[in-house]
Amino acid sequence: MNILITGSAGFVGYKLYKSLRKSHEVVGVDNRFNSDISDTSIKNISTSSKEFLSILENNNFDLIIHLAAQASGEVSFEKPEYDIDTNYKSTAFILESIKTKNTKLIFASSMSVYGDCDNIAFETDQTNPKSIYALNKLNSEKLITIYSKIYGVDAVSLRLFNIFGPGQNLENLKQGMVSIFLQQSLLSDKILVKGSLERYRDQIYIDDVIDAFMQLVMHPEKIKNHEIFNICTGVGTSVKDIINIIKEENNREYLIEVLPGTPGDQVGMIGSYKKFNDRFDWTPKFTFKTGLKEMIKWAKNG
Amino acid sequence: MNILITGSAGFVGYKLYKSLRKSHEVVGVDNRFNSDISDTSIKNISTSSKEFLSILENNNFDLIIHLAAQASGEVSFEKPEYDIDTNYKSTAFILESIKTKNTKLIFASSMSVYGDCDNIAFETDQTNPKSIYALNKLNSEKLITIYSKIYGVDAVSLRLFNIFGPGQNLENLKQGMVSIFLQQSLLSDKILVKGSLERYRDQIYIDDVIDAFMQLVMHPEKIKNHEIFNICTGVGTSVKDIINIIKEENNREYLIEVLPGTPGDQVGMIGSYKKFNDRFDWTPKFTFKTGLKEMIKWAKNG
Repeated sequence: MNILITGSAGFVGYKLYKSLRKSHEVVGVDNRFNSDISDTSIKNISTSSKEFLSILENNNFDLIIHLAAQASGEVSFEKPEYDIDTNYKSTAFILESIKTKNTKLIFASSMSVYGDCDNIAFETDQTNPKSIYALNKLNSEKLITIYSKIYGVDAVSLRLFNIFGPGQNLENLKQGMVSIFLQQSLLSDKILVKGSLERYRDQIYIDDVIDAFMQLVMHPEKIKNHEIFNICTGVGTSVKDIINIIKEENNREYLIEVLPGTPGDQVGMIGSYKKFNDRFDWTPKFTFKTGLKEMIKWAKNG
Repeated sequence: MNILITGSAGFVGYKLYKSLRKSHEVVGVDNRFNSDISDTSIKNISTSSKEFLSILENNNFDLIIHLAAQASGEVSFEKPEYDIDTNYKSTAFILESIKTKNTKLIFASSMSVYGDCDNIAFETDQTNPKSIYALNKLNSEKLITIYSKIYGVDAVSLRLFNIFGPGQNLENLKQGMVSIFLQQSLLSDKILVKGSLERYRDQIYIDDVIDAFMQLVMHPEKIKNHEIFNICTGVGTSVKDIINIIKEENNREYLIEVLPGTPGDQVGMIGSYKKFNDRFDWTPKFTFKTGLKEMIKWAKNG
């Protein structure tokens, strides 16, 4: 297949890019605002550039995997316009370019579209975005639904829960609950926590997420209309849990300092992956502890 | 009060602008993409221009009435990017500028956010935007909700149903169900209808809409948090009904030619104005027939 991956120098994107290049024609683009991957085969352009629009116009991709994103809820409040461009307008450009072609689309959405959930989140639940980031992800989903109904675009949106694991950018202290605490634990005796220690997330290991994307790439015939799937584990892990495992693995004590939270940050979130499991026979294989041990090993040994 | 009106050379905007200038300090802006009003006191700028951002930055308005919009569902499919900028990003610019000020906001939203409705639409109903235009109006509402919760912005969104009456732009054949058919009936013996004759809308007369805005201007203390209200009549009028009254008033027969509809166009829509009536003691005063007679008189005599 002929595949375009946006955000292909990102945490998920780069792993997919390397893996898919083995057996497909892959074009990768990334603005590298949030990546130190120097692989020069990836074009250094943003999804709002003229070069990107011309790539869309001049190619007939079989599949576009749209991962490029401003991925921090916190930054979305600092730069709302940039968030709109990156997380919503980019999707509009892609949809316009494929509305008359046979290109299928996989869109990386986010669990944050649900807002707080008292119970486990299902794809049919009402959405309640609490940050500008979450809203723009939801806006993209809804735009895809319109293009699917009007023009017959075939697409899947994956609502990715909290991804962690080797390869995650440890320098970025504005996104990635696990990576933020892990990086601090490696550099100092103090861990700063923005928001409550009781906040919990459905933490999913990077390899399980890559596996979910690969299921879609292996079965493009199953991408029909616009379907939305949670990609998660069904298990909640709190900030406290994360820090306890870090302590245990590093065999070290930390001073925990709790600061006020980010506006719009969610208290808790767990999802159900039943729908994706039913359709693609996929299930997450890593427990949080196994995954975190792998990540700590990687972070210590580089 | 010190008031900013965007879209102040538009159908609703210009009537509000003239009326409010009598007793308030009013700044009006309009890009005039869809207006032939030459009133030079209205600044000829768009809501994505640097001049507009500098007006927002350098003023402390008591109230912003945000009417500027790309107002056609049909055009939203032709120019999705322009629709995103005009109907969503402009709201983001305004919200950013007022998040630390005491400025209240009235946002002109649309009944199209509901999509098709089998029953009468209430503000608590689920939304289902079927055009890019409708989606961007809904996106703006949700962004206002986030700014209201996070920063305490006080705002009202009015979901305006189909507005008609004297002053409507008869030249624009891409928006305004009543104006489109009326204009044709004045120029030829043939009326082209895009989509079914059975489509119906909740048609509300311009003076009733202006009255609803005036209720909010007169009671700014009632604008608290972010509340959403339908502005409508509760009565449905079909394309067939409209054409029949036009025939009757013009005392003339027409050849009716039915063409395929616009993508995303809604079949039918009626709203309930109970919520706005409860809060503001407002009720629509014009029946459709009375309003249309006024409009025909105006269209014929200029």
